[in-house]
Amino acid sequence: MSEKAKANDRAKRIVPGLSDEDFERGDVPLTKEEIRCLTLSKLKLEEGNRVLDIGAGSGGLTVECALLLGGEGVDVEEDKESKNDRYIKGCSVKDRVIKSGEVMAVERDPEAAALVRVNLERFNLQNVTVIEGKAPAVLQGLGSFNRVLIGGSGGSLAEIIDRVYELLVPGGVVVLNCILLQTLAESLDALEKSGFSEISFIQAAISRSRKMGSGTALQPLNPVFIVSAVKGVN
Amino acid sequence: MSEKAKANDRAKRIVPGLSDEDFERGDVPLTKEEIRCLTLSKLKLEEGNRVLDIGAGSGGLTVECALLLGGEGVDVEEDKESKNDRYIKGCSVKDRVIKSGEVMAVERDPEAAALVRVNLERFNLQNVTVIEGKAPAVLQGLGSFNRVLIGGSGGSLAEIIDRVYELLVPGGVVVLNCILLQTLAESLDALEKSGFSEISFIQAAISRSRKMGSGTALQPLNPVFIVSAVKGVN
Amino acid sequence: MSEKAKANDRAKRIVPGLSDEDFERGDVPLTKEEIRCLTLSKLKLEEGNRVLDIGAGSGGLTVECALLLGGEGVDVEEDKESKNDRYIKGCSVKDRVIKSGEVMAVERDPEAAALVRVNLERFNLQNVTVIEGKAPAVLQGLGSFNRVLIGGSGGSLAEIIDRVYELLVPGGVVVLNCILLQTLAESLDALEKSGFSEISFIQAAISRSRKMGSGTALQPLNPVFIVSAVKGVN
Amino acid sequence: MSEKAKANDRAKRIVPGLSDEDFERGDVPLTKEEIRCLTLSKLKLEEGNRVLDIGAGSGGLTVECALLLGGEGVDVEEDKESKNDRYIKGCSVKDRVIKSGEVMAVERDPEAAALVRVNLERFNLQNVTVIEGKAPAVLQGLGSFNRVLIGGSGGSLAEIIDRVYELLVPGGVVVLNCILLQTLAESLDALEKSGFSEISFIQAAISRSRKMGSGTALQPLNPVFIVSAVKGVN
Repeated sequence: MSEKAKANDRAKRIVPGLSDEDFERGDVPLTKEEIRCLTLSKLKLEEGNRVLDIGAGSGGLTVECALLLGGEGVDVEEDKESKNDRYIKGCSVKDRVIKSGEVMAVERDPEAAALVRVNLERFNLQNVTVIEGKAPAVLQGLGSFNRVLIGGSGGSLAEIIDRVYELLVPGGVVVLNCILLQTLAESLDALEKSGFSEISFIQAAISRSRKMGSGTALQPLNPVFIVSAVKGVN
Repeated sequence: MSEKAKANDRAKRIVPGLSDEDFERGDVPLTKEEIRCLTLSKLKLEEGNRVLDIGAGSGGLTVECALLLGGEGVDVEEDKESKNDRYIKGCSVKDRVIKSGEVMAVERDPEAAALVRVNLERFNLQNVTVIEGKAPAVLQGLGSFNRVLIGGSGGSLAEIIDRVYELLVPGGVVVLNCILLQTLAESLDALEKSGFSEISFIQAAISRSRKMGSGTALQPLNPVFIVSAVKGVN
Repeated sequence: MSEKAKANDRAKRIVPGLSDEDFERGDVPLTKEEIRCLTLSKLKLEEGNRVLDIGAGSGGLTVECALLLGGEGVDVEEDKESKNDRYIKGCSVKDRVIKSGEVMAVERDPEAAALVRVNLERFNLQNVTVIEGKAPAVLQGLGSFNRVLIGGSGGSLAEIIDRVYELLVPGGVVVLNCILLQTLAESLDALEKSGFSEISFIQAAISRSRKMGSGTALQPLNPVFIVSAVKGVN
Repeated sequence: MSEKAKANDRAKRIVPGLSDEDFERGDVPLTKEEIRCLTLSKLKLEEGNRVLDIGAGSGGLTVECALLLGGEGVDVEEDKESKNDRYIKGCSVKDRVIKSGEVMAVERDPEAAALVRVNLERFNLQNVTVIEGKAPAVLQGLGSFNRVLIGGSGGSLAEIIDRVYELLVPGGVVVLNCILLQTLAESLDALEKSGFSEISFIQAAISRSRKMGSGTALQPLNPVFIVSAVKGVN
């Protein structure tokens, strides 16, 4: 398939449903399809949300959030007609972008941040700002958020969670992906101390099928803990 | 919260992200939030798709597909203004419905079929047709589909899979949820015999956190196998 | 089967292989067969070991350790002959007991301690001492141990782990069963601080088959973390 | 540690509790420690049992069964004294061997069969016969068995299960380890057709801890299905 055909193909996709192969992947690990989808499910996005993605990695979740929030932008000239055709008559794609939600993606590793930008371009996303730097330092002056994703903390987890509590609007949701048992325990503790409520998590143990001779075996992905919590309204 | 407030709340939700509590649940089992989201992820919906949901149960996946395909209809009078405000100016909600994809939900149990209808109303969905009856008998004259979900087969799995292959357009995707090991093995076999390609599955073993004294334990959901396959293009 | 027949049956069993049904079970939870067996596997018992079981619960692991350490005593009169027949000629069962290892079982709940005693009698075990009381207070004057099991800590985990380090001989092994994520994280931390080496754990996610209609589904047991560590020889 | 010191070490071990490192491992896969232990648990060995191990692989389960059945033989000269000391006075090690159970290990791959022999020697086992050849052809004239393990079938599973039913004494137990979903489904079906009762299985999804930076992640082993069934007494 040509790059253009592939791009057109991607433009028709609905999230959840992007495959790992749809993303540009460097040496930066990409959150696997199944984990991305479960994470988004726990994020409970609503239309028009402002989302902060701390530790964006290669941008898998950033891209999917941006797509869910309607951030797909104006296509290249030759696709414009067919593209509009997929949407509602009398409603220009540009209008749609203006009304959409937006994502601020924080990533301290320059190589990963560059990969996020490549993936944003690949999906033609206009509603994402990439912020290169280390949280919580770079979280100043970004305004408040409806949703926060924490994919990586660089060792300052408790401090970041404290800061996220301040950044969230009442009713806002934070979701963390943890690989390490210690990070899980620390985040549960820090979320409670910061004042979050409805703290809960799932452990996702997904195995994929693998052809083996004449049959099919199970190949387990690394288990991930997906923690979520709500900033109470009171 | 009043019923009206709850309904407004639901109208802002983006799939994935509906909770199990968002659905009316009778005695019919509801596919759990995490499994719904993984199933949708494997379905790889595209805009404007026609979807067939065989064994719709209480309608969880039907509702989420319909929402993803843009099927949310005209709201009750008093919500109309605020609702339009969430969408694009100059683009009426009705227009949106016309351009959306659609879902045909097949369910043989009348009680379950009634529950599907309750949930469609709850989410104000206009792009779903409920067909009460047993597959494969009722699958005549429905036209062709881009995507097929099989949640239950009533014992005619191989026959249904054969029929689904005919109903799918080239490039179409079928996704099955299996609880029984025998159903998994049978479906893998039947998919291959029917001519499907890219046959694969995941096993989703999800545990939810559960408060226990001063700590948190893991409460496992029943594991589910999610099988998917593609009808080749040539 | 008569009680006597059942008892004879039990006398022939080799650990691992006792079923949950082989134990007297009150309201005290019994560690499940699969978890008992994995726990024993990590304990790496050797002949003649002295074992301390802290938080013995209903005695499942105490019984299996005692059996593995050769603690089966003289049978009731009428079985003696057939029993000896199962062992080696010229070697009285009493001799065997004298040479066996032994288990000290600590349990603070009187009801559970009573259940341990019932199960010891059921398996005719002579090499177990039940100590009713709360650890670490009751761990004075018990001598040193080759192996320590921690099934429950009553909230004094770090303190107990410190004490266990002192009680273990160099090269000794400690194994903990954790249900709570917080207990897992705390035990990993405390083991390191106490000076243990080779700290590792497994998560055991076991599902059992369950007949459902014409097929078989998976019924997950609650996942358990089994932590083990060694007191270095230096 | 010298080879002799290691051997002495091994001689003190009690099953379950052998580590993967205790075995000689070639290119033939070794059933992992946790799976060996769960498999043995389901085998429900009793003293004096005759065991048939079909598809012995590198001999992990063969060795552990043989040890559980008291098959440890006379040690090399210089260890004899200390060794006897670990057992009961007046009871020679040779006597013990005579009364022990025994294992027949069938393996069609000559390289694997050689590895089984190496491991038998390593554990000084005298109660195992290695049969090089393909089941069910080589199962003639072996007598009857109390227990049968099936680790591999070489494609003749249904036929082997039929034959195993004949070879088992009433009340005998068969245990199969399955990696492939198709083998699981086929074995459940074949066991029922052959007349077995109490057919059940577990799925063992074990993750091991893995140090990662300052924390600990979970590293999943490949999930295994362990099927067991009983030949009814009628």
